[in-house]
Amino acid sequence: MKIGIAQLNPIVGDLIGNSEKILAAAQTCASERVDLFLTPELSLCGYPPRDLLMDRSFIDDMAIALQKLAQALPAKMAVLVGTVEPNPQATAFGGKPLFNSAVLIQNRQIVRKFHKRLLPTYDVFDEDRYFEPGEESNFFSLEASDSSSQTMRIGVTICEDFWNDEKFWGRRNYPENPVAELVAKDIDLLVNLSASPYAVGKQKIREAMIEHSAIEYGLPIIYVNQVGGNDDLIFDGSSVAFNHSGQLVGRAPAFKTDLLVLDFDLDKQDLLQGKITAQPQSDDAEIWDALVLGVRDYAQKCGFKKVVIGLSGGIDSALVAAIATEALGADNVLGVLMPSPYSSDHSITDALELAKNLEIDTQTLAIAEAMQTFDRILAPMFVGTAPDITEENLQSRIRGNLLMAISNKFGHLLLSTGNKSEMAVGYCTLYGDMNGGLAAISDVPKTRVYSLCQWLNATREHPIIPAHILTKAPSAELKPGQVDRDSLPPYDVLDDILQRSIGTHASPAEIIKAGHAPEVVEQVVKLVARAEFKRRQAAPGLKISDRAFGSGWRMPIASKRTRSSDFH
Amino acid sequence: MKIGIAQLNPIVGDLIGNSEKILAAAQTCASERVDLFLTPELSLCGYPPRDLLMDRSFIDDMAIALQKLAQALPAKMAVLVGTVEPNPQATAFGGKPLFNSAVLIQNRQIVRKFHKRLLPTYDVFDEDRYFEPGEESNFFSLEASDSSSQTMRIGVTICEDFWNDEKFWGRRNYPENPVAELVAKDIDLLVNLSASPYAVGKQKIREAMIEHSAIEYGLPIIYVNQVGGNDDLIFDGSSVAFNHSGQLVGRAPAFKTDLLVLDFDLDKQDLLQGKITAQPQSDDAEIWDALVLGVRDYAQKCGFKKVVIGLSGGIDSALVAAIATEALGADNVLGVLMPSPYSSDHSITDALELAKNLEIDTQTLAIAEAMQTFDRILAPMFVGTAPDITEENLQSRIRGNLLMAISNKFGHLLLSTGNKSEMAVGYCTLYGDMNGGLAAISDVPKTRVYSLCQWLNATREHPIIPAHILTKAPSAELKPGQVDRDSLPPYDVLDDILQRSIGTHASPAEIIKAGHAPEVVEQVVKLVARAEFKRRQAAPGLKISDRAFGSGWRMPIASKRTRSSDFH
Repeated sequence: MKIGIAQLNPIVGDLIGNSEKILAAAQTCASERVDLFLTPELSLCGYPPRDLLMDRSFIDDMAIALQKLAQALPAKMAVLVGTVEPNPQATAFGGKPLFNSAVLIQNRQIVRKFHKRLLPTYDVFDEDRYFEPGEESNFFSLEASDSSSQTMRIGVTICEDFWNDEKFWGRRNYPENPVAELVAKDIDLLVNLSASPYAVGKQKIREAMIEHSAIEYGLPIIYVNQVGGNDDLIFDGSSVAFNHSGQLVGRAPAFKTDLLVLDFDLDKQDLLQGKITAQPQSDDAEIWDALVLGVRDYAQKCGFKKVVIGLSGGIDSALVAAIATEALGADNVLGVLMPSPYSSDHSITDALELAKNLEIDTQTLAIAEAMQTFDRILAPMFVGTAPDITEENLQSRIRGNLLMAISNKFGHLLLSTGNKSEMAVGYCTLYGDMNGGLAAISDVPKTRVYSLCQWLNATREHPIIPAHILTKAPSAELKPGQVDRDSLPPYDVLDDILQRSIGTHASPAEIIKAGHAPEVVEQVVKLVARAEFKRRQAAPGLKISDRAFGSGWRMPIASKRTRSSDFH
Repeated sequence: MKIGIAQLNPIVGDLIGNSEKILAAAQTCASERVDLFLTPELSLCGYPPRDLLMDRSFIDDMAIALQKLAQALPAKMAVLVGTVEPNPQATAFGGKPLFNSAVLIQNRQIVRKFHKRLLPTYDVFDEDRYFEPGEESNFFSLEASDSSSQTMRIGVTICEDFWNDEKFWGRRNYPENPVAELVAKDIDLLVNLSASPYAVGKQKIREAMIEHSAIEYGLPIIYVNQVGGNDDLIFDGSSVAFNHSGQLVGRAPAFKTDLLVLDFDLDKQDLLQGKITAQPQSDDAEIWDALVLGVRDYAQKCGFKKVVIGLSGGIDSALVAAIATEALGADNVLGVLMPSPYSSDHSITDALELAKNLEIDTQTLAIAEAMQTFDRILAPMFVGTAPDITEENLQSRIRGNLLMAISNKFGHLLLSTGNKSEMAVGYCTLYGDMNGGLAAISDVPKTRVYSLCQWLNATREHPIIPAHILTKAPSAELKPGQVDRDSLPPYDVLDDILQRSIGTHASPAEIIKAGHAPEVVEQVVKLVARAEFKRRQAAPGLKISDRAFGSGWRMPIASKRTRSSDFH
């Protein structure tokens, strides 16, 4: 029995385009005499469709697209397509109007429907907003295409349905366990259609979990994941299969579309060894690939060919320029240098050296005249006031305006270059350096920005990031002699506090107990709360962590949080 | 039996401050010999606490605050406080870690806990993200403070628990019906602790629904709502009580904190007639009050005393200036005029007349020089290109920079002035006129902007909005002779299409069927989809409709939606 695993990269909402992608892969599989063809969760509409699901006409159109797809699919193959199905009992019994479903298509007919049961509603996931959970987990029987008349029972789960192995997690995440229920129904193979977004190190957890279940239940398991960037989310693919002994027998590549074909031996009742693509070799390699895919897909799915980036001579814009160059090609990246009177000489020379290494075009636009003009316009109002953060922000906003003007005039996508550390503490200017259609590294802490650049230099024939960018003290260069260290703790300290506070929800008391200075912890926690208004207006940022700012971060702005230390 | 209804305005997260507000109201009630004291949903932490709930220390601090509050409350009175309780069985049985609860405090002890059962997870609500639904609905018995020893049974529901009256809605919204369950337990009074955000006309629905249930079950009902603005959400108060015949016997004011005391006659087993405050007399009056409260609370809860507004001489900024003046006082509003060479003379005279009517200060900053400076800086790059939207956006962004400089220098909150119609179709400049900490009227369609201004003029001693602002053709004045009508359908047409498309999820085909020109509908639908990237970076906007852009609007950006007409 041959099984085809289509690791597809859909465009959200593009029912026709996604159907074509499914069809093309299915036709390839048919030519290889595949019996069962698997696609990711919601492969027809792409994941996450979000509030598109609230338009009845979108649901109707999805039903039309599914029918057309079913008509066009190769007849003999069994196909599982991820789609949305109406819940006919919603009005009578008080449920959500839709199911997140997988439909089985055979001989151009929709013959079975399977509904997702465990609906993630945390972090970036809002599935309870749209979907009713399915009531039971089911399997279907598939007959071998040879003359043996042997059949196998294939249990169907969708993404989260698999994520409730109590023994693996040491806790129950949901009351129901679809996998255990299917095992009780005596299935021969479990398939899981997923759209599981990337986070650093997540694939290791997924594989450990699948291995654990395969061994626990003596069950071969196939996990097929979506790939590609959709707004802030990057889906990493890395679809895998484990045999009933818990051995990895197949793995599609990370961050690439793929079509993996595996054999299921009906006599052995197990998956046979197939092709295993290696994973990226380090966290840095993995993050790099993720960000490259995220930038490429956001640009291309939004219809941009080229990007523009402000090059400050600093490490953040250097990394973003390198990512963009890998994603879109050097010809499609424009770096803009915008020196002010406070810019160091090396801000220019470092940026130009970087551009030379990347072989990208640059333009230089000095902003002194614009600074003077704004100062002159504001002088009557500002008379008697001292220069402060206002004038620093103005520089950043003049640059932001110039970059947007270039974006508007030439149709380039502006990438913003802020990292997670500065987004956390608000060390960035709203409507200034935060400008852009996509925040390429806003989920990358500053310390990781360094390690990514070092990894990049170490793995390329010639160093990409100029050495001086890696060694000089980080500075916003918005006033003479300014360095980040004047306003912020050292980045290794800051990032550790942020990881504890944001990543693990540790309280200030717990972070202090871990060895950080109380006044530094208090400062950081205050800055993070105060910067919420900036983050609310930030560009979508590519998510690479379990807790990113963006669609999964939902904090009040006009709030005043009581802390334990406030009680008397 | 005396019942006190505290319509409170909490600050989200401010456990100590909110405790003090509860305590102050409770003490007033105690002095009036109140037996039962009611507060809104989550009155201790304020609604919505959002991801503050993900920090364990916040939950711990809430428990401390609750204990301290219980110790401080008047002893004899029974008090219902809205708070969050841990779900001790979450790990063992796979549930969410918290309950949205009401606790009964008597004699300084927490004696009972009631958990919300119906958890709204739609629009701006994300309760399934945090909370486990309660398993059953319960009541408590309260003994009269006089010598009669009579007792009454009080059923407790929390907000959404009440919103599932199948006969009223003509459909079931949830499988469970807490009200019917409590009625079966033979209660004498139903109380509903709510945090129900404002939308135009919503109070009429609430009262019709409560009246319906009171009659259906022959049950007196008290609904206590939060009041005040929390980010984009405005809670309108308007707490009400109905007796067992479905007559309105008490109503607290809309958009104001209040303490309403009602009598429950134990012999008649019913609520007695109490004070009924009239509702705002029209939709315009209601929206005005809502926006005034929303602006005031956002500013004050964020710690701002003064606001700054760009005055273009147009109707949107005129309305926002009038709202801000009512909210914060004329002394706390600064209007900034920023004429360009394309500005009409009346843009200045109209803005100055408005400022005079409002008695607010103005400053005038001409932007021609900044336009020339940007043109000069960009000239080498833009050589050979024709002026286009780029130069228009630059004007808007220069103005945005000036306003933010004033905001930064003087600590004023910048209010942006875009209306819902332009936010929908993207007729606004990101990092330009969209700049601001709060978008005061971004959920107000342009046609409603006009009716609000007309209502304002008609209800004030002297007209506030200059007549010419109401009669001239709307224009962005970003190039010579420009009017909105060049780029957009007439606003009555546009707003009707938007209301159908966004408000009721109608498809283009349905909107065309309703009488709109196909090419206009197609244009509007395309513009709305294309403007998603702008809305994602917009300031929080005060919500006054059932479907506002903002926290309840979750659309993909990098998407390409197939429409029925795309199928061949």
